[in-house]
Amino acid sequence: MLSNTRTLQVEFGHCDPSGIVFNPHYFVWFDFSVHALLGRAGLTLKSMIDEFGIDGIPLVDNQARFKAPSRWGDDIVIESSIAAVHRSAFEIRHLVRNGGTIAVECSETRVWTAFDREQGRVRAKPLPPRIVALLSGAAPGA
Amino acid sequence: MLSNTRTLQVEFGHCDPSGIVFNPHYFVWFDFSVHALLGRAGLTLKSMIDEFGIDGIPLVDNQARFKAPSRWGDDIVIESSIAAVHRSAFEIRHLVRNGGTIAVECSETRVWTAFDREQGRVRAKPLPPRIVALLSGAAPGA
Amino acid sequence: MLSNTRTLQVEFGHCDPSGIVFNPHYFVWFDFSVHALLGRAGLTLKSMIDEFGIDGIPLVDNQARFKAPSRWGDDIVIESSIAAVHRSAFEIRHLVRNGGTIAVECSETRVWTAFDREQGRVRAKPLPPRIVALLSGAAPGA
Amino acid sequence: MLSNTRTLQVEFGHCDPSGIVFNPHYFVWFDFSVHALLGRAGLTLKSMIDEFGIDGIPLVDNQARFKAPSRWGDDIVIESSIAAVHRSAFEIRHLVRNGGTIAVECSETRVWTAFDREQGRVRAKPLPPRIVALLSGAAPGA
Repeated sequence: MLSNTRTLQVEFGHCDPSGIVFNPHYFVWFDFSVHALLGRAGLTLKSMIDEFGIDGIPLVDNQARFKAPSRWGDDIVIESSIAAVHRSAFEIRHLVRNGGTIAVECSETRVWTAFDREQGRVRAKPLPPRIVALLSGAAPGA
Repeated sequence: MLSNTRTLQVEFGHCDPSGIVFNPHYFVWFDFSVHALLGRAGLTLKSMIDEFGIDGIPLVDNQARFKAPSRWGDDIVIESSIAAVHRSAFEIRHLVRNGGTIAVECSETRVWTAFDREQGRVRAKPLPPRIVALLSGAAPGA
Repeated sequence: MLSNTRTLQVEFGHCDPSGIVFNPHYFVWFDFSVHALLGRAGLTLKSMIDEFGIDGIPLVDNQARFKAPSRWGDDIVIESSIAAVHRSAFEIRHLVRNGGTIAVECSETRVWTAFDREQGRVRAKPLPPRIVALLSGAAPGA
Repeated sequence: MLSNTRTLQVEFGHCDPSGIVFNPHYFVWFDFSVHALLGRAGLTLKSMIDEFGIDGIPLVDNQARFKAPSRWGDDIVIESSIAAVHRSAFEIRHLVRNGGTIAVECSETRVWTAFDREQGRVRAKPLPPRIVALLSGAAPGA
């Protein structure tokens, strides 16, 4: 399966008056990490819109467990990987490591959507075989 | 159970290049909503720290389902309520309504934590009876 | 001149480990305030793009003075007003009041821009007379 | 004078519905850049608080000029340097380069502050000679 690892430093401005990361920042980082993960396969949202005519890959579901706080100055590592590829959706798992401990675990589901002319609205569409292959790691990225 | 409803307008700056709310903003709003919910019972994080000597009420788990996008200019309503009160944790449910539809559903769990001298670290502690009563709606807020 | 006043509560999540508002939030609030100010004249960015074919009203310059900190739980008042209307730009002044004191002063300049076919790029264009009248307060808003 | 250069990628989530960086993000990046700049001299806010008993180095003034937009996927370079060292304040200049053009210029002033027992409040204090030497680049950082 496709995977990617990023390191980032927790900044003063990421932290709240308790001195730990204000939680929503993790979801910002996970969004950035999804784009970086797709980039590993040579994919960008722009190129997918252009090539496949999709509307996007909206997040429909996420679940996070915050297991240990991260503090200003900590270097954290975010490991993101494709956890499952379904007919018209795929799951991404993010692990945030801080030193020797797991700080946050998150699973998210994104859906391949396009405008449906018959229904007159955006709806889920089957993932193209090339995307399935790239997400599954069965095809080399660009 | 304790509950609170807030209305807010989705701003241009909350939206991403797709023209819809950048998802992490929902988690910012949910955090603000938790503080507003506690405020309904006359509680603030500061007053709880002062009165009970807690370290905080950290978020340990959340689960969100994004069911419909919200767009710049939309007025959304966030209904937050206590969904369960456990021994040392409580659950909050957030519903985001946008016009006649539910845009987002989220459940989160927060833990009552304090520094434990014996163990030399912050850990979960039983919720005081007064807090249980306030969260359950069994006692009137200030 | 057109003016607008908004009140907002400083949230826990707006503050940094020093316990005061993390400065960039003021610029977020000023952006929201510009949209609210235009709304006073019945204008939205969307309607201006549709009616006048502009590309936008990008911020080109701002200057801020931070005179007193704002803290979690403070109710602050943001007064925004048109300070000057030029040929193809206008200036907005924001005053943030916190209790009896001025917390922040900011002046910003925005430019009326549209795609220029001859030059093949977006550039400043003269403000239409109706916009000048609305910003100046000489014409009633919708 | 002390200086530091950082590169960062503009993410999808940094951009607004116009497809360009939502301006307040630049001020977030400038704040991170100030900490990185001080880090070049071996200084952290924590160490300065511990060693010198200061309250902080609050931002009191900034001025920015937005000269060209940055878009999702762009790699931008932020050059930050000490522009002036005064008795109890110092100025930092940030230049954001995007490809061959300057996207943003910003100057900010920060003040060395500490609690004054006689006056019973936080106020500006003279910069210690070691800090002056480090900011000026006259002393090697840690």
